[in-house]
Amino acid sequence: MPKTPALNARSALAFAHDLADRSGAVTLRYFRKDISVANKLCDGGFDPVTAADEAAERVMANRVARTFPHHGIIGEEYGTTGNDARYRWVFDPIDGTRAFIMGQPMWGTLIGLLDGDEPILGIMNQPFTGERFWASQDAAHYRLGEGRAKRIKTRRGVKLSSAILTTTHPDLFTVARDAKAFARLAEKVRMTRYGGDCYNYSLLAAGHIDLIVEVDLKPHDIVALIPIVERAGGVISTWAGQPAINGGRIIASGDKKLHQAALKILNR
Amino acid sequence: MPKTPALNARSALAFAHDLADRSGAVTLRYFRKDISVANKLCDGGFDPVTAADEAAERVMANRVARTFPHHGIIGEEYGTTGNDARYRWVFDPIDGTRAFIMGQPMWGTLIGLLDGDEPILGIMNQPFTGERFWASQDAAHYRLGEGRAKRIKTRRGVKLSSAILTTTHPDLFTVARDAKAFARLAEKVRMTRYGGDCYNYSLLAAGHIDLIVEVDLKPHDIVALIPIVERAGGVISTWAGQPAINGGRIIASGDKKLHQAALKILNR
Repeated sequence: MPKTPALNARSALAFAHDLADRSGAVTLRYFRKDISVANKLCDGGFDPVTAADEAAERVMANRVARTFPHHGIIGEEYGTTGNDARYRWVFDPIDGTRAFIMGQPMWGTLIGLLDGDEPILGIMNQPFTGERFWASQDAAHYRLGEGRAKRIKTRRGVKLSSAILTTTHPDLFTVARDAKAFARLAEKVRMTRYGGDCYNYSLLAAGHIDLIVEVDLKPHDIVALIPIVERAGGVISTWAGQPAINGGRIIASGDKKLHQAALKILNR
Repeated sequence: MPKTPALNARSALAFAHDLADRSGAVTLRYFRKDISVANKLCDGGFDPVTAADEAAERVMANRVARTFPHHGIIGEEYGTTGNDARYRWVFDPIDGTRAFIMGQPMWGTLIGLLDGDEPILGIMNQPFTGERFWASQDAAHYRLGEGRAKRIKTRRGVKLSSAILTTTHPDLFTVARDAKAFARLAEKVRMTRYGGDCYNYSLLAAGHIDLIVEVDLKPHDIVALIPIVERAGGVISTWAGQPAINGGRIIASGDKKLHQAALKILNR
């Protein structure tokens, strides 16, 4: 493999924002449409979320192939290409499928970029509310609609007893040991809430949620969110304290001490 | 009590929309603000959601007192006044407290109007997303931002096995019998999701959710939503099939047959 020159970080981020704009236009065509409408849009298919997922990923993958033909892609719908490339784009066109299906705005499009095994940029785009959360090289940002970008930071200094904890669904924990670990943690916090997916990681980065604990995540569920959480001041790792990049059992925290305290309870 | 002349339905609805505009401006000042900010806004209080609730209800109650001095008010924060009036306004400034606290947009302001025991109009306003759902005399409507109002209808002809079911939280069912009844129903449907409150009732009215099952609702949680669900073609009642106006154990369905099927399972 020829040595790939380093990408310009600013132009890579601008490219990623363009992917978010384009994929958002696609996913919105399918959001809150009934099956008969979706059916017309996707030529006889019956599943609006799958149709939206595929169409949005195709748009993003085509842009990457044209602009960065030597980059790899890790997608949700079309799998992995160019896995030995230095740079790999990681897409989850609709993270939060259940929310999407039932018309709730708590889903998002995830766009990440790996340099080797390092997530170097991330975007979470929610086109219905017009919210975008992203990580540049050294900070995390938020923009609502055409508003100005603001830096976001996690909430610090929160004790476990004051923390707000979220996870996807109570049935997520199919392994009894994991379910017990989550229940131990849920008992210690101020409030637990279910549902949210990538939207919750973004709210954690913005200082509104303190802890997220999940299992069975795929790389495309998490890669884009890692730099957003970390550059907002948060911590994200596996339950074993390892890098989150491969997914699996994931914990994200707004505060380092809180992360340690929660890990201790999960791994008791 | 002197006989109260009938209100003009159109002007009552216009008045209610004005309440939604005004209360929305208030609640947004507190949404996604950290405690220190909320603290300044509410003169030393420490609970942004309570502060927002109180301020928004005060704005609405003051308008009613000035415009319709003979009307009663059933509020969440300040209790009931004028309970023997023919017309009573029913307010829940922030329905979906947990969502509000953690920055999720799935809360709303509920504005209902009772003529005797009959809910004659209802509004669910979500000021962050700019969504408004409401019931006029004979139809249910939706508007996004400055967009045009659209009629909304529930999804019909859905079988239990294809239905999307929601409830507030798995811990909602503190009575074992209720928890078992909900679990029986959850087993039969396609998908169950937690969280949503008034936002879910609105999505049910708009045809995206099929069933909502809850317990321990207060009148202010439900009165405004009854005409929205009913005029969109849905059914809403207690688990015993009685009018939902007093709250308690509530079930809402997009389809009459589905409602009957779900009631049967709940009451087995």
